[in-house]
Amino acid sequence: MAAADPTPVNDTLVLSAPLPLDGGQSLPGVAVAYETIGTLNAERSNAVLLFHALTMDQHVVSLHPKTGKPGWWSKSVGPAKVIDTDRFFVICANVLGGCMGSTGPASPAPDGQPWAMRFPVITIRDMVRAQVALLDALGIEQVHAVIGGSMGGMQALSFAANWPERTRAALVIASTARHSAQNIAFHEVGRQAIMADPKWNGGDYYRTGKGPENGLAVARMAAHITYLSEEGMHEKFGRKLQDRTEKTFGFDADFQVESYLRHQGLSFTDRFDANSYLYITRAMDYFDLAEEVSGGDGGGRLADAFRASTARFCLVSFDTDWLYPTAESRTIAHALNASGAPVSFVELSAPFGHDSFLLDVPALDRVIAGFLNQ
Amino acid sequence: MAAADPTPVNDTLVLSAPLPLDGGQSLPGVAVAYETIGTLNAERSNAVLLFHALTMDQHVVSLHPKTGKPGWWSKSVGPAKVIDTDRFFVICANVLGGCMGSTGPASPAPDGQPWAMRFPVITIRDMVRAQVALLDALGIEQVHAVIGGSMGGMQALSFAANWPERTRAALVIASTARHSAQNIAFHEVGRQAIMADPKWNGGDYYRTGKGPENGLAVARMAAHITYLSEEGMHEKFGRKLQDRTEKTFGFDADFQVESYLRHQGLSFTDRFDANSYLYITRAMDYFDLAEEVSGGDGGGRLADAFRASTARFCLVSFDTDWLYPTAESRTIAHALNASGAPVSFVELSAPFGHDSFLLDVPALDRVIAGFLNQ
Repeated sequence: MAAADPTPVNDTLVLSAPLPLDGGQSLPGVAVAYETIGTLNAERSNAVLLFHALTMDQHVVSLHPKTGKPGWWSKSVGPAKVIDTDRFFVICANVLGGCMGSTGPASPAPDGQPWAMRFPVITIRDMVRAQVALLDALGIEQVHAVIGGSMGGMQALSFAANWPERTRAALVIASTARHSAQNIAFHEVGRQAIMADPKWNGGDYYRTGKGPENGLAVARMAAHITYLSEEGMHEKFGRKLQDRTEKTFGFDADFQVESYLRHQGLSFTDRFDANSYLYITRAMDYFDLAEEVSGGDGGGRLADAFRASTARFCLVSFDTDWLYPTAESRTIAHALNASGAPVSFVELSAPFGHDSFLLDVPALDRVIAGFLNQ
Repeated sequence: MAAADPTPVNDTLVLSAPLPLDGGQSLPGVAVAYETIGTLNAERSNAVLLFHALTMDQHVVSLHPKTGKPGWWSKSVGPAKVIDTDRFFVICANVLGGCMGSTGPASPAPDGQPWAMRFPVITIRDMVRAQVALLDALGIEQVHAVIGGSMGGMQALSFAANWPERTRAALVIASTARHSAQNIAFHEVGRQAIMADPKWNGGDYYRTGKGPENGLAVARMAAHITYLSEEGMHEKFGRKLQDRTEKTFGFDADFQVESYLRHQGLSFTDRFDANSYLYITRAMDYFDLAEEVSGGDGGGRLADAFRASTARFCLVSFDTDWLYPTAESRTIAHALNASGAPVSFVELSAPFGHDSFLLDVPALDRVIAGFLNQ
């Protein structure tokens, strides 16, 4: 049997009906930009829906159109890879609120002008709702599995909880069932950094061609620290100086870690829309699965979120992840146990902190392959 | 015997000689603003030199002239208090580079204009050098103890290492012998936030009366998260909403933790100079005691820093402090052991993270009193 064509296909679906949102509004003309890899089988039963993280997008294996870099999970998705596209039809959509083709604050509102801050505040469930509509359009009643890391894991949880009949399995990596006070705090710093930049201009910067790049870079720098472990930063940078043998007694980037962070901040502004960053971080901060499913005001038992689910679950955390530490995954595992769902949970050891889910962790590959191929 | 007058005395010393700096320059006309509490005894042997942390100042017990709030350690310093001013003559000076009366970037340079970014980059040892000059002026050859938390602890270490004959004891709380990559990274985010604010204007904002308040507020917010523990934030805020019963689906401070952080950021700008924040964080990032004492380029054994010391040491860390975690204090304790210095080291349990050194931790009071009264 010949290997299936691994060429990714990129397309955009425009939803025919307005998308109802958790905030009460309905959003007309929603575009969902997505990538597929592999071939949907005749039974339409081999789809795997990947959810991307905060700053990622649908370019799982294709070259990123703005950076020219390989897709964010090209090491793991492809023929005979961990997520084997000879067997699975992999789908990944840019989230609602994003800036890579799906409808977001940079998209035109019905009046033809960019939504900017008139865009409604969305939730993780709203993002998932747009992707359920994509599955509908693709004629996929039930996927083999949903998979996501970080914010992708939140979407995987929300999908399994709110559309329990639409998946047979959910793999949730380095994620949480609700954003903690510290998580919210870091995001709020980023949002304030963006909004403090005069070029943000109340979100109305699209006509100028120049957004709040300085503010967005600072937001990215602050967030980036939370993606790495203290130990990992020490191993990688320590107190090593950047292209110099002595401190300069100035405010240049003397230390490698400063230079690295500045680069992370600046390069991010080339590929990401500041308003999207505001809306997506807000959605993450609002995420509280127990509350989401109870429809309530902070109440709700997390176990109840999985009442109607018959899916298998797999939870993975990393021992050096302090953004969504192992305790968060353990809380989810306990809730799944309480609801009687089949669940496996593993904490993996990896030095990279939260970013481990995107990096080379062979044990993670084994967990993913083992879970998908059950 | 009548209790000594607890009234704090505030004064400013102007150094008669230029202050030599680690960067190679000499700084003329350095002012050292300081507070004393208690009475220097006839033998001039009962002085305790307190070093303040990054955003504190000399107002240990006196009302802060800008905020009107009690001094930062008024709960612990006073007659019959933990640091008993019936017995000890307590001295605390605003650090070099600060903005509460000691010479810093807002001070006039010899040309009469504010130094602004022409102010030389200083080090923790430079800060200490200014305070040694203050002891000289006060006729104090040797203090009973030096005490400091956080950046104050760095100064206490630097003092004991570089002026070993000038103290009989050093108490170092929630501190480190060198800034880690993660420590530097968080400071760099803060500096970039300040420098990204157009009102920073290359540091030249004193004439306008309006500094980079937005940038400084963001810097403070980012730093403030590192002062609290994840657990402490959860206990204090969780996901509680601020003065509302439902999320607003907007970008107001829905969550209490957002409101709290915004307040922390804004109120900081009323009392702190942004350029001082740049210079003091830079000094902290440069701090590496082993390197400082070896005079070298990142080399040096930490134990060698204490070669000439005959002082007693006490190190205190907090189990929830992730800014300067217990491992940092343990490293110092090992170095002191290796150098044969008498040292006690205790990790205290407290829920407040790094800020524990300023908050109500009775066990800390017992450690301080026990160590001082030996």
